[in-house]
Amino acid sequence: MAYIALREELPGMRALLDFRPAIAAPLTKLTELLMRSDEGLSMGERELLATFVSFRNNCAACYGIHGEIARCFFDGQPSLVEQVKENFQEAVVSPKFKALLHIAGRVAESGKNVAEEDILAAKHLGASDLEIHDTVLITSLFCLFNRYMDGLGIQSSDSPESLRQRGRYMAEHGYR
Amino acid sequence: MAYIALREELPGMRALLDFRPAIAAPLTKLTELLMRSDEGLSMGERELLATFVSFRNNCAACYGIHGEIARCFFDGQPSLVEQVKENFQEAVVSPKFKALLHIAGRVAESGKNVAEEDILAAKHLGASDLEIHDTVLITSLFCLFNRYMDGLGIQSSDSPESLRQRGRYMAEHGYR
Repeated sequence: MAYIALREELPGMRALLDFRPAIAAPLTKLTELLMRSDEGLSMGERELLATFVSFRNNCAACYGIHGEIARCFFDGQPSLVEQVKENFQEAVVSPKFKALLHIAGRVAESGKNVAEEDILAAKHLGASDLEIHDTVLITSLFCLFNRYMDGLGIQSSDSPESLRQRGRYMAEHGYR
Repeated sequence: MAYIALREELPGMRALLDFRPAIAAPLTKLTELLMRSDEGLSMGERELLATFVSFRNNCAACYGIHGEIARCFFDGQPSLVEQVKENFQEAVVSPKFKALLHIAGRVAESGKNVAEEDILAAKHLGASDLEIHDTVLITSLFCLFNRYMDGLGIQSSDSPESLRQRGRYMAEHGYR
């Protein structure tokens, strides 16, 4: 049960975005621009980051849906999302992406917890400035979303099947 | 020294917003809409929240500038910003605003740390759904900004006097 009065027929985040539509518009636009790009990080990697950060922040509604979206981008690796959530250092992803996940984990705790060595390690493995920037901003954006949802008591009421369907839809169509 | 290559002549957040201008546009728009409103919370209260959250997150660049903006809105109470940062329960603000600051402190730690009793206490003191919503979203937005700045190694290079001038300018003109 949400802590404020929202339209009950809308699920999770959509009820929240309906509460102040004028403010929801730039938030959705920011999400679309940041998540729906293959420049540097792929869309799938961006969704893995969103899932990982939301899992670290214990926001089940967020890691539920973003895990489903990520799964669509890596459909040849059905256990990849679980690997990244549980122990990304052993996941079947590149060393560069592991270094970016490490930075994301630090940023999720606090921006202050990123050390220059973390950045240098990622650069040494081939991460560009754009990839580092986007990793930090995606992490920061999901620290916003996780708090926005949980801070207002929003939970997901989706069944596993409707979550899969919504994940597939969003993997295809994005956030608009 | 920032962890990625930014235009050195731009200060702090402006250098970061210059790195990916297309993404900066909706982020700036969101900030403008959320912070430059007197509906429910006043603009001054919104800036106090931004300052308080950034202080809790130990982001000196952010609490520096937002503290200066807040000071402009409460120019008859020159020590208010310090009171709110150091011990908001003793600050000269309304009981309702103290209850909202308490919620903001919880959200800054984790959205999961907000208890229903925290919300009920704020409502009992007269907080509307809109005020509770905006408190949670402002807190979440500054958890984003604090991580975006610190995670990329951005620091403020402003002198106290230029910080005051920039604060005055932003209090008058906003974030556009």
